[in-house]
Amino acid sequence: MIQQHVHELGFPTRGRGFYEITDEVARRVMDSGFGTGLATLHLRHTSASLLIQENADPEVRRDLERFFSRLAPDGDALFRHTIEGEDDMPAHVRTALTAVNLSIPIVDSRMALGTWQGIYVWEHRIQAHRRMVMLHLLGE
Amino acid sequence: MIQQHVHELGFPTRGRGFYEITDEVARRVMDSGFGTGLATLHLRHTSASLLIQENADPEVRRDLERFFSRLAPDGDALFRHTIEGEDDMPAHVRTALTAVNLSIPIVDSRMALGTWQGIYVWEHRIQAHRRMVMLHLLGE
Amino acid sequence: MIQQHVHELGFPTRGRGFYEITDEVARRVMDSGFGTGLATLHLRHTSASLLIQENADPEVRRDLERFFSRLAPDGDALFRHTIEGEDDMPAHVRTALTAVNLSIPIVDSRMALGTWQGIYVWEHRIQAHRRMVMLHLLGE
Repeated sequence: MIQQHVHELGFPTRGRGFYEITDEVARRVMDSGFGTGLATLHLRHTSASLLIQENADPEVRRDLERFFSRLAPDGDALFRHTIEGEDDMPAHVRTALTAVNLSIPIVDSRMALGTWQGIYVWEHRIQAHRRMVMLHLLGE
Repeated sequence: MIQQHVHELGFPTRGRGFYEITDEVARRVMDSGFGTGLATLHLRHTSASLLIQENADPEVRRDLERFFSRLAPDGDALFRHTIEGEDDMPAHVRTALTAVNLSIPIVDSRMALGTWQGIYVWEHRIQAHRRMVMLHLLGE
Repeated sequence: MIQQHVHELGFPTRGRGFYEITDEVARRVMDSGFGTGLATLHLRHTSASLLIQENADPEVRRDLERFFSRLAPDGDALFRHTIEGEDDMPAHVRTALTAVNLSIPIVDSRMALGTWQGIYVWEHRIQAHRRMVMLHLLGE
């Protein structure tokens, strides 16, 4: 019979950049005892993202950061919501361009990620933050 | 025992802009009686998006609109699919860059949104439309 | 009583472009026997996407391709991860800007897609690849 569990996970960031959370989520999936199921992650913020990306060469993540910094530069004169800092609106834009929730099937007690896929919290703000992810696990 | 409900919700828009639907969805979650579960929203269109973004300062949404208008401007000479209007291809591009489905865990009979997160239908067309969202609720 | 099935589907691509998978997924939904439920698709790669877009005029997809080719051009001097080819980092960027998972409610034994919505594997690499999609079906 299908059952469900929820966990709230907190991840401290040291400011803008990628923080891999794959192992922490995989551990919760394993602990659930679900052989088959569905893992849903929701990030409870509007200036950071959840991203599935290559976990091999770290230069890939640095290039992603370079691309998004050029696409939505800090201090862009276009923006009027500037009271929270030059990096705040670019952070909201990056969040809109990416995702705050992910849904990943569970097969053989593991998330069905590809060989090179890792799950990251992508912090868009310059300052350090604590980012909260709600994890919903469903399965049997 | 886990159960499910589906609802089709219609939201009229007055043309390009953000329309908050958080309260309407929250009411359906509450009415389901599910204490723990998963809410999935799917927008049945290719020229509008579902977006989770800041619900405090409305200038944030106006800045998002400014950014996307600059990134994918109406009447861009790049586009050949122009028969449905100058704003049609930019609307498809905005939809591809954002999302048409969202998955949000339900905890304590509420969606596990962050303090500043609201759910919006983002209309990308200039003209008014009626946008349909299929809401799937699963829980117990 | 709610049940679940998972299927791994493979889709060969002939290089960059859109490959519609709606019919294949719809057939699996129909075969599941679920009248109401939830279909979740996860693409197990970091240089291709899953996209829901217009399935009428193919010029829409060609325009999307033109837009993303201009936004993240092959051989961009910004990128340092170049060992896998000029199109590799642009492919990762396109994946970050779009999605690798989709969640679609099932109503009356069909995915609740809009009239003009089709599901596509969007291959971002120049070379042909075989792309794997894990399909999780839940319902009753």
